[in-house]
Amino acid sequence: MRKILIFGSGRSAPSLIQYLAKESVANQWQITIADKDIRAAQKFIAGLNNCKAVSADIHDDSTRDTLVAEADLVLSMLPMRFHTLVLSSCLKHKVNLVTPSYESDGMREKEEEIRKAGIFVLNEMGLDPGIDHMSAMRVIDNLRDEGHRITVFESFTGGLMAPGYDDNPWQFKFTWNPRNVVLAGRDGAVRFRHNGRYKYIPYTKLFRRTERIEIEGYGAFEGYANRDSLKYLEKYGLQNVETIYRGTLRRPGFCRAWDLFVQLGVTDDSFIVEDSEHMTFREFINSFLPYNPHDSVELKLMYYLRIDQDSGLMEKLQSLGIFTDEVIGLKRATPAQILEHILKKSWTIGPDDKDMIVMWHKFFFKDKDGNCFQKTSSMVTIGEDADHTAMARTVGLPMGMAAKMILNGNIDIKGLHLPIKREIYDPVLDELQKYDIEFTEKTIPIEDDYEDQPIF
Amino acid sequence: MRKILIFGSGRSAPSLIQYLAKESVANQWQITIADKDIRAAQKFIAGLNNCKAVSADIHDDSTRDTLVAEADLVLSMLPMRFHTLVLSSCLKHKVNLVTPSYESDGMREKEEEIRKAGIFVLNEMGLDPGIDHMSAMRVIDNLRDEGHRITVFESFTGGLMAPGYDDNPWQFKFTWNPRNVVLAGRDGAVRFRHNGRYKYIPYTKLFRRTERIEIEGYGAFEGYANRDSLKYLEKYGLQNVETIYRGTLRRPGFCRAWDLFVQLGVTDDSFIVEDSEHMTFREFINSFLPYNPHDSVELKLMYYLRIDQDSGLMEKLQSLGIFTDEVIGLKRATPAQILEHILKKSWTIGPDDKDMIVMWHKFFFKDKDGNCFQKTSSMVTIGEDADHTAMARTVGLPMGMAAKMILNGNIDIKGLHLPIKREIYDPVLDELQKYDIEFTEKTIPIEDDYEDQPIF
Repeated sequence: MRKILIFGSGRSAPSLIQYLAKESVANQWQITIADKDIRAAQKFIAGLNNCKAVSADIHDDSTRDTLVAEADLVLSMLPMRFHTLVLSSCLKHKVNLVTPSYESDGMREKEEEIRKAGIFVLNEMGLDPGIDHMSAMRVIDNLRDEGHRITVFESFTGGLMAPGYDDNPWQFKFTWNPRNVVLAGRDGAVRFRHNGRYKYIPYTKLFRRTERIEIEGYGAFEGYANRDSLKYLEKYGLQNVETIYRGTLRRPGFCRAWDLFVQLGVTDDSFIVEDSEHMTFREFINSFLPYNPHDSVELKLMYYLRIDQDSGLMEKLQSLGIFTDEVIGLKRATPAQILEHILKKSWTIGPDDKDMIVMWHKFFFKDKDGNCFQKTSSMVTIGEDADHTAMARTVGLPMGMAAKMILNGNIDIKGLHLPIKREIYDPVLDELQKYDIEFTEKTIPIEDDYEDQPIF
Repeated sequence: MRKILIFGSGRSAPSLIQYLAKESVANQWQITIADKDIRAAQKFIAGLNNCKAVSADIHDDSTRDTLVAEADLVLSMLPMRFHTLVLSSCLKHKVNLVTPSYESDGMREKEEEIRKAGIFVLNEMGLDPGIDHMSAMRVIDNLRDEGHRITVFESFTGGLMAPGYDDNPWQFKFTWNPRNVVLAGRDGAVRFRHNGRYKYIPYTKLFRRTERIEIEGYGAFEGYANRDSLKYLEKYGLQNVETIYRGTLRRPGFCRAWDLFVQLGVTDDSFIVEDSEHMTFREFINSFLPYNPHDSVELKLMYYLRIDQDSGLMEKLQSLGIFTDEVIGLKRATPAQILEHILKKSWTIGPDDKDMIVMWHKFFFKDKDGNCFQKTSSMVTIGEDADHTAMARTVGLPMGMAAKMILNGNIDIKGLHLPIKREIYDPVLDELQKYDIEFTEKTIPIEDDYEDQPIF
């Protein structure tokens, strides 16, 4: 029996574990899930083959080393900051490692050690990052193989609610870490390239410069820009494209309303709100509005943020209860923490809710004769239930498939990698289709002058 | 002869040196100015008594120690980050130290060592911080001594151009570190208290929530909020006031126009603009605007920032040359660095220009019978010439006066202090009057209901 060790049993663990357990019978695997608190793991492995849960503190070097020494492959589903700890044990015992997180600076610093140890370390093997790389690179490599020149690349991903389950005015609920949603865009200016020009967007304009896209059968979405699209120029070998832009999808109207929180200042995570514990939601909002004893909080906010009565914006805000007298109850909280607390009351995914992952790539390319085309590649997948959400499945399944390929010796790569090589992404994208995670491509001829395309 | 050692010969040095040199004859002082580059110091001491300039690298421990060991008093005019180095030598040789900078965390960590060494360390002894503390505390202590209860405290300071010299559409030139002007407000949300309520302002609204004030004989000004007014509650013993607000003064219209830079994103200091060296001013501005090949940069900017043709805002922007084809020429520069470079072309103070410092405090207080009053205390002072600017004088003179008091034994204090004690501020404020730095107080009765006062 070959042994797979999984560190962490968070939200994306159930789909990973279910996949590995199913495959374990034919492949003769033993699966161990290590977590400080094993209750979630125990729930996820109930009724599954070849799985066990063990209690382990990732900071306990000796326990971690013992577990890794016994394993043939390690999958780390822990938060990104713990991966270098896991890596240190993998280096010591020469065990391969896969994670769904961004390749950190800490990882890159160990690249030479990884090479010397002769192990394979694969990061960014989830959804975003993960499936985004794989699906984009498949199109990019195919276009190149056919001798075409890519001029434009845009890519959007969104974790949303499935149609029928998007039943609030924002058409949004949390399917992942709510804190990341609240702090989105705060970590620095956006950088991208548009028709050969470098463009920058500050946080204060981020949610007002969205692009609208439509996906057949699923309607309209809007995308706001991710922080740094430029780093993908090199990553994807697209140094010569005229346009590169990566973004995050929401349903139309979300971003305009979210911008109200940005303008108000309530997404700030850098200071403590005075007496946050005993403050009401209404008082919290009022603390960001100018003093005026004669007007209501609602009226002051509408005036301050220039909200028209009939814009639908107040309806979105009111749906969150931000004007109520409910007490916050959080000690020494930042505005961002309080906003997250408020949003969770309306945006927590229910046991019967279904989520949806949407991914959409757009390419413009020229063939050898100078003819221009637009190619789109899009994927929409719906969650199964509250454990096996679309988010959990699209993160967990690629992780599991990478594990299978590595253990079966179907990948002959050593060193530190992302899933941008065909020998990794081809089998994974093919197998994902069996799990209803499938890309639809469409190519249409366009005019040479792409300057008349939608402007953002 | 007693020996005064001055570290640094920056913009506020000439007024300090001139004051000390003049006083040195009667007081029998020897003044040494230590700087890495002594050319400025040599110019400032030309024709003055008892002064010499020596070359010294502040990072050279042995040179610094030798200089401090010989001194009876050290004045550090260096940037704030170097003061703890100076302090280490002062602690070793038990020499008193005065600086015009904010008391840093590094200073506070040494409070116990300062106490044990039995020396006197006085920070915040310039203008702002400095004269602001002293002039406010004089009013606060007087009102308390008379048995009054203070309910409102607002305080504004501005470094501006004197009337007649404010000859550009912004009515503004740099009289201090331009970088601080460009980055003003970026370091965190504003916090203050208004009529008993805590209020917060994010950067994106900072320059739109100004307060207008008028000073007799000098016309109208507008003030935007300084970052943290709340720390003055304890510092000034004003824990029970209903309102505390500190701000920075500009001429009316400045802030509304400056907000355009904030909204555009060009005050960002966190990333490098691609190929900043060869870019033109116009291309720089365009890189923050949405792509559109059909409209001019000016038109896009007006549309993007919702600027009305007749608002005077475009005139302000155009006066800076931001739409010209002048090449930036700065390698690997941030947006803030490029903006500073552009602004310096229009806002550099000329040899014949005169600047102006404006300080304005407003208090509401109640007497024992419940009668309410407003008391204002304001100071306006005009610079003498390009060296002895109002800024240099209001920073350098209080430093010099503190030096005189310490060397003459007129202050009997040890430990780490700010100039908020009467025994420090009274003689300094009195002497400043002889140098045309004088506060005018005015008290008028007001209605008990201060809720009808101007709203901000």
